[in-house]
Amino acid sequence: MQLHGKNFIGGTLSAEGENTFQARNPATCEPLEPRFHEARADEINRAAEMAALAFQERETRSAETTAELLEHIADEIDAIGQPLLDRAEAETGLPQGRLKMERGRTTGQLRMFAELVREGSWVDARIDRADPRRRPLPKPDLRRMLIPIGPVAIFGAGNFPLAFSVAGGDTASALAAGNPVIVKAHPAHPGTSEMTAVAIQKALAATGYPDDWFSMVHGVQNEVGQILVRHPGIQAVGFTGSLAGGRALFDTAASREVPIPVYAEMGSVNPVFLLPGALAERADEIATGLHASVTLGCGQFCTNPGLVIALAGDDLDRFLARLSECFAAGGPCTMLHGGILEAYEVGIEDLSAKPSVELLAHSAPEPAVGKTQAATALFVTDAEPFMNDAEMAEEVFGPSTLVVRCETAEQMLELACGLAGQLTATFHAGEADRSLLDSLRTVMEAKAGRLLFGGFPTGVEVCAAMHHGGPYPAASDPRSTSVGTAAVLRFARPVCYQDWPQDQLPAELQNHNSRGIMRQVDGVLTREDVAD
Amino acid sequence: MQLHGKNFIGGTLSAEGENTFQARNPATCEPLEPRFHEARADEINRAAEMAALAFQERETRSAETTAELLEHIADEIDAIGQPLLDRAEAETGLPQGRLKMERGRTTGQLRMFAELVREGSWVDARIDRADPRRRPLPKPDLRRMLIPIGPVAIFGAGNFPLAFSVAGGDTASALAAGNPVIVKAHPAHPGTSEMTAVAIQKALAATGYPDDWFSMVHGVQNEVGQILVRHPGIQAVGFTGSLAGGRALFDTAASREVPIPVYAEMGSVNPVFLLPGALAERADEIATGLHASVTLGCGQFCTNPGLVIALAGDDLDRFLARLSECFAAGGPCTMLHGGILEAYEVGIEDLSAKPSVELLAHSAPEPAVGKTQAATALFVTDAEPFMNDAEMAEEVFGPSTLVVRCETAEQMLELACGLAGQLTATFHAGEADRSLLDSLRTVMEAKAGRLLFGGFPTGVEVCAAMHHGGPYPAASDPRSTSVGTAAVLRFARPVCYQDWPQDQLPAELQNHNSRGIMRQVDGVLTREDVAD
Repeated sequence: MQLHGKNFIGGTLSAEGENTFQARNPATCEPLEPRFHEARADEINRAAEMAALAFQERETRSAETTAELLEHIADEIDAIGQPLLDRAEAETGLPQGRLKMERGRTTGQLRMFAELVREGSWVDARIDRADPRRRPLPKPDLRRMLIPIGPVAIFGAGNFPLAFSVAGGDTASALAAGNPVIVKAHPAHPGTSEMTAVAIQKALAATGYPDDWFSMVHGVQNEVGQILVRHPGIQAVGFTGSLAGGRALFDTAASREVPIPVYAEMGSVNPVFLLPGALAERADEIATGLHASVTLGCGQFCTNPGLVIALAGDDLDRFLARLSECFAAGGPCTMLHGGILEAYEVGIEDLSAKPSVELLAHSAPEPAVGKTQAATALFVTDAEPFMNDAEMAEEVFGPSTLVVRCETAEQMLELACGLAGQLTATFHAGEADRSLLDSLRTVMEAKAGRLLFGGFPTGVEVCAAMHHGGPYPAASDPRSTSVGTAAVLRFARPVCYQDWPQDQLPAELQNHNSRGIMRQVDGVLTREDVAD
Repeated sequence: MQLHGKNFIGGTLSAEGENTFQARNPATCEPLEPRFHEARADEINRAAEMAALAFQERETRSAETTAELLEHIADEIDAIGQPLLDRAEAETGLPQGRLKMERGRTTGQLRMFAELVREGSWVDARIDRADPRRRPLPKPDLRRMLIPIGPVAIFGAGNFPLAFSVAGGDTASALAAGNPVIVKAHPAHPGTSEMTAVAIQKALAATGYPDDWFSMVHGVQNEVGQILVRHPGIQAVGFTGSLAGGRALFDTAASREVPIPVYAEMGSVNPVFLLPGALAERADEIATGLHASVTLGCGQFCTNPGLVIALAGDDLDRFLARLSECFAAGGPCTMLHGGILEAYEVGIEDLSAKPSVELLAHSAPEPAVGKTQAATALFVTDAEPFMNDAEMAEEVFGPSTLVVRCETAEQMLELACGLAGQLTATFHAGEADRSLLDSLRTVMEAKAGRLLFGGFPTGVEVCAAMHHGGPYPAASDPRSTSVGTAAVLRFARPVCYQDWPQDQLPAELQNHNSRGIMRQVDGVLTREDVAD
């Protein structure tokens, strides 16, 4: 498949800018063809205007059409076949097996949202019937449902070239809710992005959407994204990446004349609490599992367990010894790109330089030069210095973790109270740990989006019950998820019809429940028709 | 009932500040006893810290306890009886009949949320069961529901001393979701606020809540509210008032180290579109209804129809003649306080001073001096000057409206496209108007929270299907409502439990559905138990 390196401004390929860039294979540090054209302000603004116009002029699209669009995108992605995996591997250094799974997750998500839209109950339809005889005032007829919010800007994530990028979860949920989408492609995998964008354009054509419904712009400079978020046609933003990046977009969106919601999923150290009973029972098993979770995907997951909190003692020493063996037995791994590796190395050096922090173990072979390789690293410190140094609680994105030894259960609780917002919090507890577990869980419920009993936080299941998000700085908006069916709620807003004639109401709100969706009728949840 | 004029810092009455102020009876301009103490920074911060601590140390409260709290507040408000209405009348100039209805609405809302919480399905529980045999990876058990967001700051509104103030819709929904509340009382009705705060404190005591669960601070300076919103313990903000006031709070909340959601319901001109068929059929009836809606409560509703858009012609002339008669036949009315009257008069003068705007009619008797009275006013202009002067589309809070004459249906549509976000948009249409109605409605769906077919926007029904909100600047967050049961969603966030033991899960997520709530189990909505 020949790549052109241009921006997709609606259906038009555009390469007006003079700035170009290339992806680089992290495993070899070789640049990859072709050169990609950074979008200029006028190209970005044109894409946003076209999306706003397309949204304004939209015909009412049936749920069936929306579902078909999502399924067609999935089919078109599958149809690219091996070349997509090859390009993604070349651009990210991620192994084929992982990319194949990620592709399955991406197409699975698209099909899941298609099913959600086809079933239809997600619109939260509510009908309160009129009562013209009510005193002192007659009661009007009120019917409310969720409708699309408008054009959405979505930022591809570096660590998921498929599942959180051009046709990832944010795009799927924004399209499912009925919105046009403009993607800012991640500059580390522009070729993978282009191939996916072509798949989306094909799907739009096949299902009768205007090609203005989707655009994609390239860029290495932050300004490309900033221009997009500032455009008055954009109504919401989806982002997965760093705290600095997410916050910059949030600030821009909040300072617009018309502020808009920003769903930025940012950073997290995902604390793992090892309670005494669990360490006594299964220190070795937890150590093996933790090492696997920390080093999975070279530690490049937002749910990577970067902080482990445990009570000092023999069991912890045994655990640390086993964990050290795991780290020492493992090798270095390839990171996504030079920028991430550099940030990781700075983070590791900063931790190592702290007198109270000990580098307990690391991968044995030296990382190879010119291959974007990172050494894994296991650090240990004590609760007192940890609580006195906010830097230690910051995310180091990559295959390392920091174990904090507490002297008492009270200190463990105190430490938990001082933590910032998290995507996840994990608890390993034994039978005797119930009281401490309850206390820790109460604290962490107010600070984390997902609480795990046992296991490890990497691996984010895509389903209705998933919540992938959390209090700031894990995410910019604790009220919503970036994974699972509930993500569709991000890109919708309610509208209420008062005293509207039946035949002019959306199908979801007419008396005859032709779509068979669950509705709240006079306060009662039902799939029944409303009596005329 | 003797008023003390102090701040409620949890259960402690506090009057540490030196600044005091008095309410004033708008009908007489006489000051009312006692003097109220503006809260100092340390008092405000103490209230926020106490709320944060109370939230952190909360025992799990059953839905039943929450429901009882809400019902007790309603009962305690009822128990105050006539003195509450008398004080509210003295502080606002609103007539007893209106205040009695507003009290009914307030207690009705509290009881509605009690019922919602008792029924319990609002938590949007979702259960996806484990599949340990799934390949390549076993599927974990995931269970997700909404939990309280944390301490909420609520700003009393000037125009609803009961229904949007201390125990109004925002407080009811925040408490219903399980959060502590700190109210910043509106300085125009501090006595009514104090009486209501006492009712809440009594209800907390009767239902076993700590008295730190609720605080109320007084103040005339904006800084009082700003201090409250800046406090890191506060997790969300509810506000009803002006665009300037709401935006200032939004900006403060967005610039915090940890940004928090602000639900500000601000301003709206609530356009009424009069289509040709409707004017031909019933110009007189619409004129009478519109006059009643514009002057209801002296025009001091956020849903006041401040803008009327119609096609020029004989029918419109007939309508304007009738509408002028209505305005001329009515008297002036008492506004809530001097500040609102002054702003109204400035707005009216600004409009009158525009060469393209004609003052067509106004209430006949001169407003009495020293009685905070406003003249009603009917203005007319043409579409061309209206579209060239953004000021004309701004809200003038009070009993006036501006009719805009359009030359063509296309011009009507063009004008609609230029409007900002609105709480409501109303359409009066006849049989022949269907095509124009469809076009206008499509445009306004993207701009308004509630669309009315016939009728007038004043009167906001409290029910599940109501949506009271809309795109900015009608509200700061188009995704949520300040009226109706869906308001509870403002003050909640999801949390997900992975692989958690049954007996440690919240009741809403256990296999046995003891509360009988609607849940999404493996993607299917059901009230059934989950098989063990």
